[in-house]
Amino acid sequence: MKIAVLGAAQTTFGELWNTSFSDLLAQSQLAALADAKIGADAVDAIFTGNMCAGILSNQVHVGSLASSLLNLSVPSVVTEGACASGGLAIAAGIAAIESGMAKIVLVNGVEKMTDVGSHQVSTGLISAASFEWEQIHGATFPALNAMIARLYMHTYGVTRKELAMVSVHNHAHGALNKRAHLQKKITVDHVCRAPMIADPLTLLDCSPISDGAASLVLCHEDVAKSMHVNPPFIIGSASATDTLLLAERDDLLTWHATTKAAQRAYDMAGINVDDIDVVELHDGFSIVHLLALEDLGFCKKGEAARLVASGTTTFGNELVVNPSGGLKSRGHPVGATGVAQAVEIVEQLRGTCGARQVQNAKIGVTHNVGGCGATAVVHVFGRDG
Amino acid sequence: MKIAVLGAAQTTFGELWNTSFSDLLAQSQLAALADAKIGADAVDAIFTGNMCAGILSNQVHVGSLASSLLNLSVPSVVTEGACASGGLAIAAGIAAIESGMAKIVLVNGVEKMTDVGSHQVSTGLISAASFEWEQIHGATFPALNAMIARLYMHTYGVTRKELAMVSVHNHAHGALNKRAHLQKKITVDHVCRAPMIADPLTLLDCSPISDGAASLVLCHEDVAKSMHVNPPFIIGSASATDTLLLAERDDLLTWHATTKAAQRAYDMAGINVDDIDVVELHDGFSIVHLLALEDLGFCKKGEAARLVASGTTTFGNELVVNPSGGLKSRGHPVGATGVAQAVEIVEQLRGTCGARQVQNAKIGVTHNVGGCGATAVVHVFGRDG
Repeated sequence: MKIAVLGAAQTTFGELWNTSFSDLLAQSQLAALADAKIGADAVDAIFTGNMCAGILSNQVHVGSLASSLLNLSVPSVVTEGACASGGLAIAAGIAAIESGMAKIVLVNGVEKMTDVGSHQVSTGLISAASFEWEQIHGATFPALNAMIARLYMHTYGVTRKELAMVSVHNHAHGALNKRAHLQKKITVDHVCRAPMIADPLTLLDCSPISDGAASLVLCHEDVAKSMHVNPPFIIGSASATDTLLLAERDDLLTWHATTKAAQRAYDMAGINVDDIDVVELHDGFSIVHLLALEDLGFCKKGEAARLVASGTTTFGNELVVNPSGGLKSRGHPVGATGVAQAVEIVEQLRGTCGARQVQNAKIGVTHNVGGCGATAVVHVFGRDG
Repeated sequence: MKIAVLGAAQTTFGELWNTSFSDLLAQSQLAALADAKIGADAVDAIFTGNMCAGILSNQVHVGSLASSLLNLSVPSVVTEGACASGGLAIAAGIAAIESGMAKIVLVNGVEKMTDVGSHQVSTGLISAASFEWEQIHGATFPALNAMIARLYMHTYGVTRKELAMVSVHNHAHGALNKRAHLQKKITVDHVCRAPMIADPLTLLDCSPISDGAASLVLCHEDVAKSMHVNPPFIIGSASATDTLLLAERDDLLTWHATTKAAQRAYDMAGINVDDIDVVELHDGFSIVHLLALEDLGFCKKGEAARLVASGTTTFGNELVVNPSGGLKSRGHPVGATGVAQAVEIVEQLRGTCGARQVQNAKIGVTHNVGGCGATAVVHVFGRDG
């Protein structure tokens, strides 16, 4: 597979109280088209990842909104898979091109989360868990992830301070990213002393509630050739699912949707995990960052905390993890995240990331998760020459 | 294009207070697999149309739920385009097969609407209109469609009684459908004297609030051949969008998303409108049935009311419209409707519809709309020999 990424853009992520849901989408779409140097008329179809606009803004039908904003009448669809909605929009865009249905596709991810109270946001986010078996017992995602963190720490002898290093890592990167929600470095002490959310997870183990949108312009390889451009390409794409209920899992510490999607995407791209120079992985909570490092194949089970603490996943190493700052520091407007990860990887492969540039980045990967690993989407990016 | 429909099934539509959201989905999925005579293990991917589970049941991430119910870990995604979500799921399933990503795909549409109060349902349904420009002024879909009905009646000199004939037509068909929500004949008098919802639309001009699910098993033509079955095929598939805001339309009485999607789907299938034996069109309101007849090309602008009143779109004629009873009588569990339309057409082409069988049905069409025509999806079905 070889799908060219002609354009990539995102809004700043953060509490954007002066920017409405449709403004976010409009800004992001227009910026990606400008980056691709094409007009809206060239777009054959639009796929938009969104999770919570129905619950938080009483706005579904965002597909028609997306095409309306560009004065287009093309097919325009929302894809949803909780916090993996953005990654699934990319996969849908690829399918549209590979099926011959479209030559040039606009892919969006968008979410507006800060216009409502935090209890409403919590209600919206937990909609990704089973209503009948999890929500009804009062579960929240911090609580579910806290149980997994406890089990992980107990199983592998990981300390509270080692867990905290994940957030320190991501904030150190995000401090270099002008579009990040939280552009500041933090320390292990900050994490451990932050307000407790769900023991052992403090506020600084959790990604923030953010507004934002991100967009990609994808096209068939032939279209890119005819335009005489040499863009980054998507060379592997796969998604997988796991049981929605955590209670139905054999093993809470391996998220099989990630292992399956990663293996299929790597195989499709013809790469090994060692070939990966840069990854944007789904660190919705500090514990999720650790599971992802293992499930994506970067280390063995139980070794991720030491890998992070070793400092070998930051700039200047063979693998750089979350140069953008990840969900923790860049921010996590849920439906936008999967597309924003791709924007970061595209810019890394172009070499335009300035202070946070990964040197000589040739192969990049995005990893986007919905719920507690019930959906995972992995994309592999590369470029010619 | 030639995508085989190996299996098709739906639950009964209605107020199914003893059947939960996930029960509906489970029943429909299992029935379609049984109809296709394949096991769940044969499924490569799942696409589920759903509009309102987030708002009405606080349940997103229905993709993972759908695969969980079958103990699968395949890619599983929700597609959303308001009341056209089901039709868009079919289109996504086709793209997955045509792209080579999947050989056998399960497509679902599902909605659970009767567990909450009617004001909550109204809030959920209007989420398909613009929050910023339509909802905020107190718009409801009956109100928006009532304005369009008034304009249509004024423009073309159509009477209240002629409009009522649409519901009489659909109920006459639905009375023959054991899975329909409202299995009873009604008269013009019933419609005109029913409680007023939004003048001129009475309760019997509006499709009911229903629960239900429907599923299809789609596969590549080669898979069907290898199984030595001769199923109905999808031979045309297209969707289009229009402005989300009615205020941005030049003409409220032509829904261009329908005209565009229909023309593209007919062209793809290599048919003319005269070739169509049976159509399941989107009669969310009586006025929408009239616009659809015109926009799908069955008559000229302004002539649809007389076409319905002439009685030539019922059984025994060259074209049969909504043999299932349509949204009005079969019921309208919004995310399920587009898939249920396809189930009806598949069964018509198989010749298994009993009392409501369209004689010698060879070419069938489904027409699924989101919002006031802001999304439209058209599929063309045919069969060999």
